[in-house]
Amino acid sequence: MRPVFAVGTGGTKFGLQDVPVEESLLEASAELFLGTDIQRESVDAVIASTNDNSKYLGAILAEKCGITPRIAHTVESLCSSGTSAIVSGVSYIASGMAEVVLVAGAEKSKSPGGILEWDQSRGGYPEPVFWASLFAGAYKREHGASAEDLAAVAAKNHRNAASNPRACSAMDITIQDVLESRSITDDLKLYECSRECSGGAAILLASKDAARGQEAPVRISGIGQRTVSASLSGAGPLVHMESTAMAAADALAASNRSAKEIDVMELHDAFGICEPMALEGIGIAGKGRGAAFCSKLYETGDNFVNPRGGLIGAGHPLGATGIAQANEIVMQLQGAAKGRQVEGAAAGLVHNMSAAATSSTVLVMEA
Amino acid sequence: MRPVFAVGTGGTKFGLQDVPVEESLLEASAELFLGTDIQRESVDAVIASTNDNSKYLGAILAEKCGITPRIAHTVESLCSSGTSAIVSGVSYIASGMAEVVLVAGAEKSKSPGGILEWDQSRGGYPEPVFWASLFAGAYKREHGASAEDLAAVAAKNHRNAASNPRACSAMDITIQDVLESRSITDDLKLYECSRECSGGAAILLASKDAARGQEAPVRISGIGQRTVSASLSGAGPLVHMESTAMAAADALAASNRSAKEIDVMELHDAFGICEPMALEGIGIAGKGRGAAFCSKLYETGDNFVNPRGGLIGAGHPLGATGIAQANEIVMQLQGAAKGRQVEGAAAGLVHNMSAAATSSTVLVMEA
Repeated sequence: MRPVFAVGTGGTKFGLQDVPVEESLLEASAELFLGTDIQRESVDAVIASTNDNSKYLGAILAEKCGITPRIAHTVESLCSSGTSAIVSGVSYIASGMAEVVLVAGAEKSKSPGGILEWDQSRGGYPEPVFWASLFAGAYKREHGASAEDLAAVAAKNHRNAASNPRACSAMDITIQDVLESRSITDDLKLYECSRECSGGAAILLASKDAARGQEAPVRISGIGQRTVSASLSGAGPLVHMESTAMAAADALAASNRSAKEIDVMELHDAFGICEPMALEGIGIAGKGRGAAFCSKLYETGDNFVNPRGGLIGAGHPLGATGIAQANEIVMQLQGAAKGRQVEGAAAGLVHNMSAAATSSTVLVMEA
Repeated sequence: MRPVFAVGTGGTKFGLQDVPVEESLLEASAELFLGTDIQRESVDAVIASTNDNSKYLGAILAEKCGITPRIAHTVESLCSSGTSAIVSGVSYIASGMAEVVLVAGAEKSKSPGGILEWDQSRGGYPEPVFWASLFAGAYKREHGASAEDLAAVAAKNHRNAASNPRACSAMDITIQDVLESRSITDDLKLYECSRECSGGAAILLASKDAARGQEAPVRISGIGQRTVSASLSGAGPLVHMESTAMAAADALAASNRSAKEIDVMELHDAFGICEPMALEGIGIAGKGRGAAFCSKLYETGDNFVNPRGGLIGAGHPLGATGIAQANEIVMQLQGAAKGRQVEGAAAGLVHNMSAAATSSTVLVMEA
């Protein structure tokens, strides 16, 4: 398998107004091309990532960018469309079918990906907040975690987002503020939920040859993916993200790293409860210790988990999220994450998932 | 690049009733697994191909099939979603990221992929029949072809479909019948148009190791893809399928074959005019000679071009079409195309395209 490098990033501000996905895809890609001397003529493949119902977006983005690629299509896999598209892009380069691939994702705030109509196992509760609430309730019962412990995730990530000028929900709030925000369910407060929003992100992938001479290419050294089901009822125990654990084990093994060697990470905190569960699934925190781990991060101000604010702080434009997460890790490993740089970060990890963690992608990246 | 083989096929009947894509995806995949002894546990990736607005179909199909894959997502690129998904599947195997990939496509008869809203260059004529009509008019003017010459394509492909029990529009009709069918535009008759319909098709791809011991694996020996634009105005001269010519040249070069060595082929005859233009683009017929070539096929009864009836005869369920085309070639090369077998076929070709031939995929396959 040929090695694959990230050599460019671009993005838009995430916001609540309704921006067409075509516009966000182009804005993110245009910024990307401003920051690289890889020419558009060199781009072999253009992959769009979105849950939007617009069609032919790979070709549309290519035309808008002035690219006539060989490969062009859209990839969709709900909230992890972004990393699924990145993995597809990696495969084109790893196989030798492409040298340079543009992967761009976008969503508008009212996305059809917000509800999985197919999942009858959710009964009359199709919105994602209901599975997250089951997770939070089960986690508190099983591990004796308090509402305060879990609220620390939301306080931390809103605060981290203050250092991210593109975040949708930057707020300097306390655990108390989170607990006093509106109850959405018995076990989740408003501030513990990420917001659907508009926005785009783009990443440029390159083979070793194509990356030569580029400034600080970042290697994608490990990929893990797993789909265990498409239904909440098949996701496994409510306190354990089975797909995340399997994907992380594969990605870390491929990169020959242990979880402890990861310096900076983007975790898919669609809801506050997801971050401690992901930390446990990946092996950063022991079983039942994730919430306490997050509380400690909140207290110490250490920002190596979700430095840009995670989904809760930055916002969650579904098709863009996984790419925005990857871009944050690329910038961190390049030492270019202004105002939120994790000093000396040499290995990073991205965790992106869909639909009650029925599927997960984990990427390991290295400077 | 590791070689990739097709080792299984499955499909549904194509029809005008509205069948949910989930149902067609499963039916096609279930038939596929009945015909192979590759176990579902061996499937590393499940790729769905559709223009339908349903989300998470890769994971949904995986769950329905009892597969817990590493990779699962949807691929969309309008009418060539099917071959785009196949190429994505090939890349996972060629790179070593997967050993066995299930690619399944489906559409229901009323598909949102029928109209490209984004293409402002089409003015008030967003339906595909209008670009096809421009093509037909230009072809007749430029090459002095008659309406009868072009109608032969539709008569031939409806007739070929009679040997395909799964075809949507099998009809034993003459050129005169085509010419007497309802005028849709000045230059296209009803019988010259393929019909949107419901249906599914599935193909199983495997590495050399995984294909070992399978009955008559078919190698995908050449792939060519090109997107020249997303707009009719950028598609190039109206009498020439630029993207098809480029994709075909790449696919033939990769497989080290000339066009004349192709024994059987599936061409994307969304409208009658497309078949002669594709024949010219690929290099089977000389410039301006495609229509006469098709007339001759109609007269002689030779069925090596679109033996299952093409899109006109078989129907055009967008996301399934490219996979159904590939399956036809696989079966032909396996000598298993009952009732329509092209004797001794050893090399075959698939041509699948989107949106006024603004993009094309060409696959070369070998027994």
